[in-house]
Amino acid sequence: MTVEGLSINLATTRGSWGFAEAVDGCLARGITAIAPWRDQVAAVGLDEAARIIHLNGLKVTGLCRGGMFPAADDAGRQAAIDDNLRAIDEAAALGADCLIFVVGGLPKGSRDIAAARQMVEDGFNSILPHARAANVPLAIEPLHPMYAADRACVNTLKQALDLAGRLGPDVGVAIDVYHVWWDPELAEGIARAGRENRIFAHHICDWLVPTTDLLLDRGMIGDGIIDLPGIRDKVEAAGFHGPQEVEIFSAENWWKKPGEVVLDTVVERFRTVC
Amino acid sequence: MTVEGLSINLATTRGSWGFAEAVDGCLARGITAIAPWRDQVAAVGLDEAARIIHLNGLKVTGLCRGGMFPAADDAGRQAAIDDNLRAIDEAAALGADCLIFVVGGLPKGSRDIAAARQMVEDGFNSILPHARAANVPLAIEPLHPMYAADRACVNTLKQALDLAGRLGPDVGVAIDVYHVWWDPELAEGIARAGRENRIFAHHICDWLVPTTDLLLDRGMIGDGIIDLPGIRDKVEAAGFHGPQEVEIFSAENWWKKPGEVVLDTVVERFRTVC
Repeated sequence: MTVEGLSINLATTRGSWGFAEAVDGCLARGITAIAPWRDQVAAVGLDEAARIIHLNGLKVTGLCRGGMFPAADDAGRQAAIDDNLRAIDEAAALGADCLIFVVGGLPKGSRDIAAARQMVEDGFNSILPHARAANVPLAIEPLHPMYAADRACVNTLKQALDLAGRLGPDVGVAIDVYHVWWDPELAEGIARAGRENRIFAHHICDWLVPTTDLLLDRGMIGDGIIDLPGIRDKVEAAGFHGPQEVEIFSAENWWKKPGEVVLDTVVERFRTVC
Repeated sequence: MTVEGLSINLATTRGSWGFAEAVDGCLARGITAIAPWRDQVAAVGLDEAARIIHLNGLKVTGLCRGGMFPAADDAGRQAAIDDNLRAIDEAAALGADCLIFVVGGLPKGSRDIAAARQMVEDGFNSILPHARAANVPLAIEPLHPMYAADRACVNTLKQALDLAGRLGPDVGVAIDVYHVWWDPELAEGIARAGRENRIFAHHICDWLVPTTDLLLDRGMIGDGIIDLPGIRDKVEAAGFHGPQEVEIFSAENWWKKPGEVVLDTVVERFRTVC
């Protein structure tokens, strides 16, 4: 029996499982879509990861991640571009639906977020020809504003869509409920993303109250306050019917549990709360 | 010698000083504007606080705070309204420039942020007649989206201005750099707030990298990545020339230092980085 419409971002089982164990864990539960991270792929080897994916007919809802474009100098920005070109090749080798982008925050020592945002746009323009040649869709993930300084200076769906619009009709967005649930313009942003055919991925987890760490205290679906069915309805109404990808960073809770427990919980919750 | 253009939000010295000590500390450094919290006023007594303020000719750039409108039931919402009516009376007694509003987040058990936002608007409409009769300006403070669940479901300047626009021409906003610095629409939001004569307060502190606590790890001005002069220029260009109010919640750092050290640092930084 397969679990339709569910993808597991392998960050979710990072606490106990590498790439191969996570794939086995997914397959054992009828989950046939995954989204790995580049370090997890590198640890097993790109060719071996691609072999496992193709052998098992897995759908790859995204490769995490490209981005981190801003840097304090030209050399740093070029290094980021070079790394993103490699990420595109990896996404192509894995047959990923898209390469997910966490675009980067302020360069060290900078307080100029407008300049950082320009560096992001310039970086995308530098890699787009290669992405197009490799047929790898690029998905800009707007990150919660609490990450604006150190992880991503693209912080609303509207901002991501405006950027995608300047980059080209083939650039999209990843809509992660954790980052966008609070946005008073969320409904119109999702509808617009659908009209523009830019929804490439739909990530889910939950926002805990209280949240004890800015990065590593995401909640299991159902444990927080995000209206998951409400957002899913909007995403589906906008025309995206790909899997919902569960991505949970949880250093002090879920990453300390065995992968089996994490996945069993995800599957049970997915059936009841999403 | 006075420090022109500086106000101290008394949360900043909460770690070591109550109302009277904080006033003495400000006066000793030539700071003649403050913004107290209601619990600090209550601890010394409203009449005594008003006496101290008037005796020393202090400007009160705001009273913190009203708000917290959403609740799970009618009784809870009415209790919030009643408390806000008292807050208005206190702001009037202190001669505060405005009453600052942290509007509240999701009621316990709710995932419906649209409903919470409606409760906020309904709450404001319930208290506005009393605020107008008391001649107390109400300042909606949009809070950073990381507080949307548990503290304030008004999370962008645009959203606050839209709400203020529906409430009336006499309702304004408090622009706190900590909450809005990341907003890609900040410049247009500040300009609009100026055009509409809605800037009632300008709060400053800094965003630390890393930030270790969502609520209580604000930085001293100059220690983080917020472009304070850039935002100040926009606020002044929009027509607001009131004091910049330093408001720092810092449980593990500044609240553990003596008030003298905190204020000396604020004054030195204010002269060099703001």
